[in-house]
Amino acid sequence: MSELRIGVVGTGAIGREHIFRITNKLVGGKVVAVTDINEENAKAASAVCGARIEKDSLSVVNSPDVDALLVASYGPAHAESVLQAIAAGKPVFCEKPLASTAADCKKVVDAEMAFGKKLVQVGFMRRYDKGYLQLKNIISGGGIGAPLMVHCAHRNATVDPNYTTQMAVNDTAVHEIDILHWLIDDQYVSAQVIIPKTTKYARPGLTDPQLMILTTESGIVIDIEVFVNCQFGYDIQCEVCCEGGTARMAEPSFPLVRKDASRCVALETDWKQRFIEAYDVEIQDWINSTLSGEVNGPTAWDGYLAAVTADALVKSQGSGRAEPIQTGAAPVFYK
Amino acid sequence: MSELRIGVVGTGAIGREHIFRITNKLVGGKVVAVTDINEENAKAASAVCGARIEKDSLSVVNSPDVDALLVASYGPAHAESVLQAIAAGKPVFCEKPLASTAADCKKVVDAEMAFGKKLVQVGFMRRYDKGYLQLKNIISGGGIGAPLMVHCAHRNATVDPNYTTQMAVNDTAVHEIDILHWLIDDQYVSAQVIIPKTTKYARPGLTDPQLMILTTESGIVIDIEVFVNCQFGYDIQCEVCCEGGTARMAEPSFPLVRKDASRCVALETDWKQRFIEAYDVEIQDWINSTLSGEVNGPTAWDGYLAAVTADALVKSQGSGRAEPIQTGAAPVFYK
Amino acid sequence: MSELRIGVVGTGAIGREHIFRITNKLVGGKVVAVTDINEENAKAASAVCGARIEKDSLSVVNSPDVDALLVASYGPAHAESVLQAIAAGKPVFCEKPLASTAADCKKVVDAEMAFGKKLVQVGFMRRYDKGYLQLKNIISGGGIGAPLMVHCAHRNATVDPNYTTQMAVNDTAVHEIDILHWLIDDQYVSAQVIIPKTTKYARPGLTDPQLMILTTESGIVIDIEVFVNCQFGYDIQCEVCCEGGTARMAEPSFPLVRKDASRCVALETDWKQRFIEAYDVEIQDWINSTLSGEVNGPTAWDGYLAAVTADALVKSQGSGRAEPIQTGAAPVFYK
Amino acid sequence: MSELRIGVVGTGAIGREHIFRITNKLVGGKVVAVTDINEENAKAASAVCGARIEKDSLSVVNSPDVDALLVASYGPAHAESVLQAIAAGKPVFCEKPLASTAADCKKVVDAEMAFGKKLVQVGFMRRYDKGYLQLKNIISGGGIGAPLMVHCAHRNATVDPNYTTQMAVNDTAVHEIDILHWLIDDQYVSAQVIIPKTTKYARPGLTDPQLMILTTESGIVIDIEVFVNCQFGYDIQCEVCCEGGTARMAEPSFPLVRKDASRCVALETDWKQRFIEAYDVEIQDWINSTLSGEVNGPTAWDGYLAAVTADALVKSQGSGRAEPIQTGAAPVFYK
Repeated sequence: MSELRIGVVGTGAIGREHIFRITNKLVGGKVVAVTDINEENAKAASAVCGARIEKDSLSVVNSPDVDALLVASYGPAHAESVLQAIAAGKPVFCEKPLASTAADCKKVVDAEMAFGKKLVQVGFMRRYDKGYLQLKNIISGGGIGAPLMVHCAHRNATVDPNYTTQMAVNDTAVHEIDILHWLIDDQYVSAQVIIPKTTKYARPGLTDPQLMILTTESGIVIDIEVFVNCQFGYDIQCEVCCEGGTARMAEPSFPLVRKDASRCVALETDWKQRFIEAYDVEIQDWINSTLSGEVNGPTAWDGYLAAVTADALVKSQGSGRAEPIQTGAAPVFYK
Repeated sequence: MSELRIGVVGTGAIGREHIFRITNKLVGGKVVAVTDINEENAKAASAVCGARIEKDSLSVVNSPDVDALLVASYGPAHAESVLQAIAAGKPVFCEKPLASTAADCKKVVDAEMAFGKKLVQVGFMRRYDKGYLQLKNIISGGGIGAPLMVHCAHRNATVDPNYTTQMAVNDTAVHEIDILHWLIDDQYVSAQVIIPKTTKYARPGLTDPQLMILTTESGIVIDIEVFVNCQFGYDIQCEVCCEGGTARMAEPSFPLVRKDASRCVALETDWKQRFIEAYDVEIQDWINSTLSGEVNGPTAWDGYLAAVTADALVKSQGSGRAEPIQTGAAPVFYK
Repeated sequence: MSELRIGVVGTGAIGREHIFRITNKLVGGKVVAVTDINEENAKAASAVCGARIEKDSLSVVNSPDVDALLVASYGPAHAESVLQAIAAGKPVFCEKPLASTAADCKKVVDAEMAFGKKLVQVGFMRRYDKGYLQLKNIISGGGIGAPLMVHCAHRNATVDPNYTTQMAVNDTAVHEIDILHWLIDDQYVSAQVIIPKTTKYARPGLTDPQLMILTTESGIVIDIEVFVNCQFGYDIQCEVCCEGGTARMAEPSFPLVRKDASRCVALETDWKQRFIEAYDVEIQDWINSTLSGEVNGPTAWDGYLAAVTADALVKSQGSGRAEPIQTGAAPVFYK
Repeated sequence: MSELRIGVVGTGAIGREHIFRITNKLVGGKVVAVTDINEENAKAASAVCGARIEKDSLSVVNSPDVDALLVASYGPAHAESVLQAIAAGKPVFCEKPLASTAADCKKVVDAEMAFGKKLVQVGFMRRYDKGYLQLKNIISGGGIGAPLMVHCAHRNATVDPNYTTQMAVNDTAVHEIDILHWLIDDQYVSAQVIIPKTTKYARPGLTDPQLMILTTESGIVIDIEVFVNCQFGYDIQCEVCCEGGTARMAEPSFPLVRKDASRCVALETDWKQRFIEAYDVEIQDWINSTLSGEVNGPTAWDGYLAAVTADALVKSQGSGRAEPIQTGAAPVFYK
């Protein structure tokens, strides 16, 4: 197997984690150049992997020894780097979001289609999570028939003080937005947010929990409980109800302990712990598929769909109504 | 313990079941008179318990040896018998629904309040189900804090050919309507029905499944999946999400069998099996409390609330909007 | 249904519980006479049910208005009362043990066979427990094939200070001894006790836990963990491993609570709570079958088998070896 | 990170799997030389990793560019290769068993101690299984107190026609032998095999299932059901009963499917699937620790203990008695 020489734009926490796993846990990839607007971050990253420090995103993209780009900068800066990569004809892995607006996502889609070949993978790591893959496998197998409804919960024990009501859509539910249309192989047509009583544990100004409803072209109805101050743990639930049965994603795997008049199984408390394996599998798959000249994972179109859907949910947070989602069908290019 | 002499109005399937359990399984009650518009039904009931046959509801109510009435006739006939019992000042157990319209339910409420003493118990048997009682106990205990959301499912394997879209509210979700406001000790203010794609197993004209949303005065949001052609079994789910944790009702209790590469636990397939014990406990409790001069269970007001809430859900089946539920607060008489 | 007039010998705690349930919860039976060597106990029992107090067991048995006897006296006194009932040709329910020695159990068996008709039911209430009945149903159904092994645990949180090492057999494992041969429809041929390290929570002199091994005529091997200071609850486990699969008895049914980074289901802490329903069903079945002229439940022969098996286990506590169990096949009379 | 240059002795199925994972999935290692008595096997392995083919074990060991040895040859050939590696002072990973007799295992132990530094890791991969590590973590944490008993099951759906009664110890229970003393941090003092009725699915001559009992120095009693024709799947169970509670290893993680009146979770059917991740983690850990100059995993002494314990179990298969296990305490060298 040859080696993929990777340039990394953005070496904050998540960037350095990706650099660490490429360098120490995964095979087939090597980080050769890094850049960050914060020089200390870039130095710290370079210390981990030995890569040289470039002055900016463009110089990384245009380095002759950089085969592919990994973008993990501040969200609003993503689109610029991705467009540079497309301009250079180089494959690019972009952490979510693809861009901070649906319009900018669309620019990336248009640029990629104009280039004529898929280059972009967006960092929705749940596609690589064993739990969702098992669910997908059962649904695709057909043994429980066609999906009609999906019941989900996305629960965090607590969130940072700067977490806002809109972030419940853009940072939290965005993972369900991406994974669910993939899971049921359908596209969204409307979005509604119903607001329950807010928990006493939410800081002033934050609406929490929220119940989000998505409907699809074929009529599947999805409900998602987003509850980011649930106190008890990090808890991701997904049950798909089909015409002949239902399938519920496996709970995290821990021993069953009998103690103090209870039989208990631990829950995760941290999203990193819950999805740590998915990140490894995701980046390894990106390296492998890029070396094979393919793009396997979530596309720029998926990134655009997520942005449009999130916009409709945010709009419904204000209106209370079901808001339409109008993306049109996926271009043939992305099928 | 003295004996409660009971008159039964309506001796179809459910009437005869109650007669059988009073006669053979429960203590403290004796059926002394029965009536039914179908004479064969009345004779069959009499054969079970040895009671005499009266010509109609009023003659049962007015029999001097009848201490209390049990109404299990055709739904639209309920209110008349209940009003007769109130007029006679006799306690009455009325199978659900209390009446076939909210207006008629209100007449019963008004008559009972005018009489000045509670006499009516409505047959919402889930209040006596061990699973719901355990949930109630946990929530009341306060250990997981105040309720914010409730996620429910009411699934039947199949339904009769004459089952209609409205019956999904009036015959099916009506059980959730009654049990949930009791469970969370709150009252409903709006009702919405969201209609997913219909299963291929529904007969033409039936909308199935349906997702029903109820909100309460304090802001609790409840979602109820009603799915009456789910194929796989009779499956009742209820998860209450509170500020400090969640509680999910126990699944039916069966052995864990390992076989054919699976570990499986059986599900109920029949609602009677699922709630058979609740019926016994319900009627025993009615006998005991009536002998003590009390009314313990669901009241006429609960019957009225169920009717008004069901009407709002049926209205939303047509409008698609959240419809208001305006019952006002429960009268002090019913607290 | 006619009424079974019952005389009760022994009105301590368990006797009074039976009297309470016959009087207030069950149908078809009436306690008409009681006796106890402690006059206060007899008076308390009489107050519950209104029965007259007789001077001793024999006078209860010989009362013309006593149709059947219920024996709940001190264990060593059981056999005498049961033999009196047999001599009088009256049906008798005897709490476990049937007698305090295997030899005395054999005397009862011989007397009953000499009388020529089954009269005796022994109070092994697990035969009426829903969990064991479900297991029996699965095994009898044949879907998982013939039993080869059984893994059991009998765990109490704590025991009284006067609990002895032998009581782990005679008071605790005796329930498994009776239920398991019924469950797998086989008879025991050897018994061995293996002694692990004793828990620090056992009082001085008590050996706890113990691992008991029973083997059957067809070669089935049973292991039973008896652990009466397990601290965490009252926990009864039974898994039957068959040629085509295994079946494990259901855990007690409680809600699933998510809280404090765990998902937990409560355990019982009290054997009474675990088997309360079985006691009700047991005595109701005894009343019903006695009124029908039948003996349905555990027989005197089962009482004898339990005594002989327990003796072999106690012997093995001393020897450490597998000790033979020689009862011979059940007489045709008991099949 | 520098690179560990590995020589592989034995390139049959398991050898080639290790070569594949070192080459394609793990980091820090490179296979540089291979050998096999079957030349075709060696060629196939060389094709996977590009390593040169050496003529025999000794020439691999003595190659100047081989930093460490991986032995995956036929079991009886293991000891010779391991002794060669020790003689050359090179680290060696040896698939189980370390040797085909306890005496030969002891020779390896003696050679390693004579060399004065640990070099040998034995391939008991369960030490790297997430399920056992979670159990170990709970027990070590002390929250449920000191272990008193362990209940295990090792079940295969079926076995090859050439599987023998002794292989139930040497190939099957040997995994429990190694993992359990590590789990409870104790050493075995006796071994007994109790033979139940054999399943009709066992081929003639094979005794299956078997119940194996191990006791430890501190008095912990372990029971292991070994059942290799259980039909229903590959099923590994381990429950540790401690003074204050019990912990049971997690079941394999699959979605919960409701269908056909059951709620079911899939079981593994193949040991490779169950432990595939453990193999990856094991070899990665060996590479990492070897590069750090350490030996982390199961030692030669563990290999010796497994052989002595297995011998006692096999002896008990014949005698039916508890057979002593006399290894003495672990040398300080191995602590």
